[in-house]
This record gives sequence, structure tokens and C-alpha cells, in this order.
Amino acid sequence: MVSINVDVKQKYLDQAEMLRKLYDSKGIKVFELLGSPGSGKTALAEAVIDRIKDKYKILYFGGDVASTLDAERVAKHGIEAVEINTGGICHLEPSHVMEALKNVDLSKYDIMFIENVGNLICPINFPLGAHKRILVVSVAEGEDKFVKHPMSTKAADVIVISKVDLADAIGVDVKKMEEDARKLNPKAPIIKVSVKTGEGIDELVKALGL
Amino acid sequence: MVSINVDVKQKYLDQAEMLRKLYDSKGIKVFELLGSPGSGKTALAEAVIDRIKDKYKILYFGGDVASTLDAERVAKHGIEAVEINTGGICHLEPSHVMEALKNVDLSKYDIMFIENVGNLICPINFPLGAHKRILVVSVAEGEDKFVKHPMSTKAADVIVISKVDLADAIGVDVKKMEEDARKLNPKAPIIKVSVKTGEGIDELVKALGL
Ligand SMILES: Nc1nc2c(ncn2[C@@H]2O[C@H](COP(=O)(O)OP(=O)(O)OP(=O)(O)O)[C@@H](O)[C@H]2O)c(=O)[nH]1
Ligand SMILES: Nc1nc2c(ncn2[C@@H]2O[C@H](COP(=O)(O)OP(=O)(O)OP(=O)(O)O)[C@@H](O)[C@H]2O)c(=O)[nH]1
Ligand SMILES: [Mg+2]
Ligand SMILES: [Mg+2]
Ligand SMILES: [Zn+2]
Ligand SMILES: [Zn+2]
Repeated sequence: MVSINVDVKQKYLDQAEMLRKLYDSKGIKVFELLGSPGSGKTALAEAVIDRIKDKYKILYFGGDVASTLDAERVAKHGIEAVEINTGGICHLEPSHVMEALKNVDLSKYDIMFIENVGNLICPINFPLGAHKRILVVSVAEGEDKFVKHPMSTKAADVIVISKVDLADAIGVDVKKMEEDARKLNPKAPIIKVSVKTGEGIDELVKALGL
Repeated sequence: MVSINVDVKQKYLDQAEMLRKLYDSKGIKVFELLGSPGSGKTALAEAVIDRIKDKYKILYFGGDVASTLDAERVAKHGIEAVEINTGGICHLEPSHVMEALKNVDLSKYDIMFIENVGNLICPINFPLGAHKRILVVSVAEGEDKFVKHPMSTKAADVIVISKVDLADAIGVDVKKMEEDARKLNPKAPIIKVSVKTGEGIDELVKALGL
């Protein structure tokens, strides 16, 4: 991001707090997915949604610079899915979410997933009021991503190491990744996941309290 | 990126032009690598450097939010490698490059690689005066990355589809990716590469005129 000044930052934080209050007033739990392009955020949302959709009414918002591909994928699972195009901005801002919410009756839903724009850097600086922020880093991005991105790693509430089925093909030591993440973030659950083998999905559902 | 106004944009373009003039005055050819976190930019630089380092004097600049890992990796190939940490900014700006060049005698080198911060969105909006901008998109990010990132795809001078050895493990149709890229960018060479098998590296070296 281009550096933003303190007042502007505070404005964003205030907006995130407003969103949180709105979610709470409607009794909806909100989970944000963030991480690099193609880290597996949509695939993870799909896998979790399939596990829990009989139990909860679910809403999905997908953020992207362009296209409506993610919302189309998620809608196929029989839930309400809305795409938010930022038109070039590399992260969702609270105002994007507020705008998209204008057409939605939140009280109809128990759970919302907000998938941020694929970007390992900027989204963490623009909270959207979510109850939990889930950082998704795939082994296919290389072993060093937590160390190279300490801000995102530190601020996550849940850390997912995704695509673990590919660890050998990439030549990545998943244990080392886990240790690096743990050093930066002593609190967040760190969950190893593959949507291909199903590994870790139940554990993630549990970590989200669902 | 947070939206920037027209004057600021022009300032950036002017700075990029100044950099280009500097490169040309020193007789150095500059290649920028840009793409998502972990798309394989450093691995590609390493593979190309190994092919050409006996023929050219090479300089490498690596941009990252934090850490010096990439410059360390590249330095092991026996060439000069400098890390530029942006401290949170999600792309290199011309001023970062100017600052790093203060300690460098450019006329000693034939070729410079500038690896941008891992980010598929913002770097394309901040040219650094490079003669060719190489967009690196790995199959591990999924089939849809060109369609989802039309701005970066359109503006690239060379497009690399990396990690093609992983296409089956991810379930990606590389041909479809190539077609999508071609539709958006009718001119750029599109080169399929794997540093694991060596596929495409010679072709890339040729496309760079090296
Ligand atoms: N082998 C394997 N492939 C996976 C896994 N998870 C996702 N993929 C593949 O990785 C690619 C990217 O997955 P997506 O779910 O689209 O990633 P994303 O983070 O939503 O991507 P953006 O929204 O564009 O940033 C797709 O081709 C998926 O099929 C996994 O656990 N194992
Ligand atoms: N299987 C396979 N793995 C690759 C290939 N290219 C790179 N990798 C692996 O992918 C991971 C990321 O590669 P890097 O070269 O570090 O990617 P990068 O784009 O420089 O990453 P950042 O600078 O952090 O954005 C590393 O674990 C590499 O070993 C490839 O062609 N095939
Ligand atoms: Mg997605
Ligand atoms: Mg790199
Ligand atoms: Zn940014
Ligand atoms: Zn940005």
C-alpha cells in the first residue's frame, strides 16, 4: 500500500468497528480469509462450507480486482455468494463491504465468509470487522512466506498452511513453516490443510468453533 | 494500492523514465520480475543467471517487505545481490531503486535483474524503468490468475507460466492459461517454465535477447 496517515488509519479502524457492531447486532459470525493469489482461499471456503452448510445459513463475499469467478464457484455449493470487484485496489476496504451489504438482509444468515483480494501484504492493514481473520499460506508459495511476511503472520487469528499434499513436489519442510509461524504468532491455531486429501478440514471447522 | 491521483502518478512515471535514462547511459539492460508471492521469481532469476553468468556481469536487486533471504540465495551464485526492504509497502517504488543505486557503480554491470515484492496487483502500476517487465505466474496459483488480473497481464513484456511440472498435481490446464494470457496480451512472448525440469529456461533466455 501507499503509506497512509494516522487519521486515515483511524477512519478505517472506526469503520471496521462499525461493521463488527453490525454483525453482532444481526447475530452473524464473520470469518475473513486472506492470503496470496491462489493460496487456496476459495477452495478452503468451499470445503468448509460443504462440511457445515446443513447446520448453518451461510453468506459468502468474494473480493477480487476483477471477474466474478470465485462467487460463481461458491454459489454452486447452494449458498448465497456475492462478488465484490475493487477495480484495481489490492484489498477490500470496509466501504466495499458496507456497499455490498446494502442489498443483503444479514439477519437471514448465521455465518459469513469474506474472502479478501489475493494479496499477502495489504489486506491485513484493512480489517473488515471479522470475528476471526484466517491467513491462508500454501506450501506451493515456498517455505519462507511467514518469515518474509511477519506483519500478516502476527496479526492472524487462525493460520492455515494449505496444499500440504504438494510439500514434497515443491521441496518444502512443513514443520519448519509451522515453527516460523509459531515464533511470529504465539497464539493462533496453525492448521495444516489439503483440500485434495481432506486433511485438516475438520480441525479447521473446530478451530472456527463451528 | 490506495488510489493515487493523477499528479502523483505522473511523478512516478517521470522517475521511471529517469531510471531508464540512467540505465541506458551506463549501458546496462534491466529486467524486472514481478508476480505473486512464491510464484518462482527468485528461482527463475537463479536459473537464468546460471545460464548466462559467464557471458555477462550481472547485478540483482530483490524487493521484499522484510528479510534478506532472496539476495542471500542469489548471492550464492557468485553475483552481486542487494536486498531492498520496503518495510510494509507492497511494491518497489522508483525511489527505492534510486536509493539502492547510490552504493552501486552501474557501469560495472551488463545486466540487472530487479525482483519486485511478491504481489500480483500493485507492482505493475509502479514501473522502475526496466527494459522488459517479466510477469511470473505459477500454475500452482490456479488456472484463473490471468483472467483475474487483467491489468498485470496486459502490461507485461514477457509472460512466464512457471512451475509447469506441477500442472497435474494442481489440476490446471496450462493451455487454457496460455490462451487466457494471449487474449489479454497479444504481443508478449508466453513461456512455460519449470526450474525443476529445466523446461523453458533456454527459451526465456532467448526471449530476453541474452
Ligand atoms: N493440490 C492441491 N491444490 C489445491 C489445494 N487447494 C487449492 N488448490 C488449487 O490451487 C488453485 C488455487 O486455489 P483457489 O482456491 O482458487 O485459491 P484462492 O486463494 O481462492 O485464489 P484467489 O482468490 O485468486 O486469490 C486451484 O487450482 C485449486 O484447485 C490443495 O489443497 N491441494
Ligand atoms: N516444483 C517446482 N517448484 C518450484 C519451481 N519454481 C520455484 N519453485 C518453488 O516454489 C517456491 C517459491 O519459489 P521462489 O523462487 O522463492 O518464489 P518467489 O516468487 O521468488 O517468492 P517471493 O520472492 O517470496 O515472492 C520455492 O519453494 C521454490 O523451490 C518449479 O518450477 N517447480
Ligand atoms: Mg479465491
Ligand atoms: Mg523471491
Ligand atoms: Zn498494496
Ligand atoms: Zn497494493
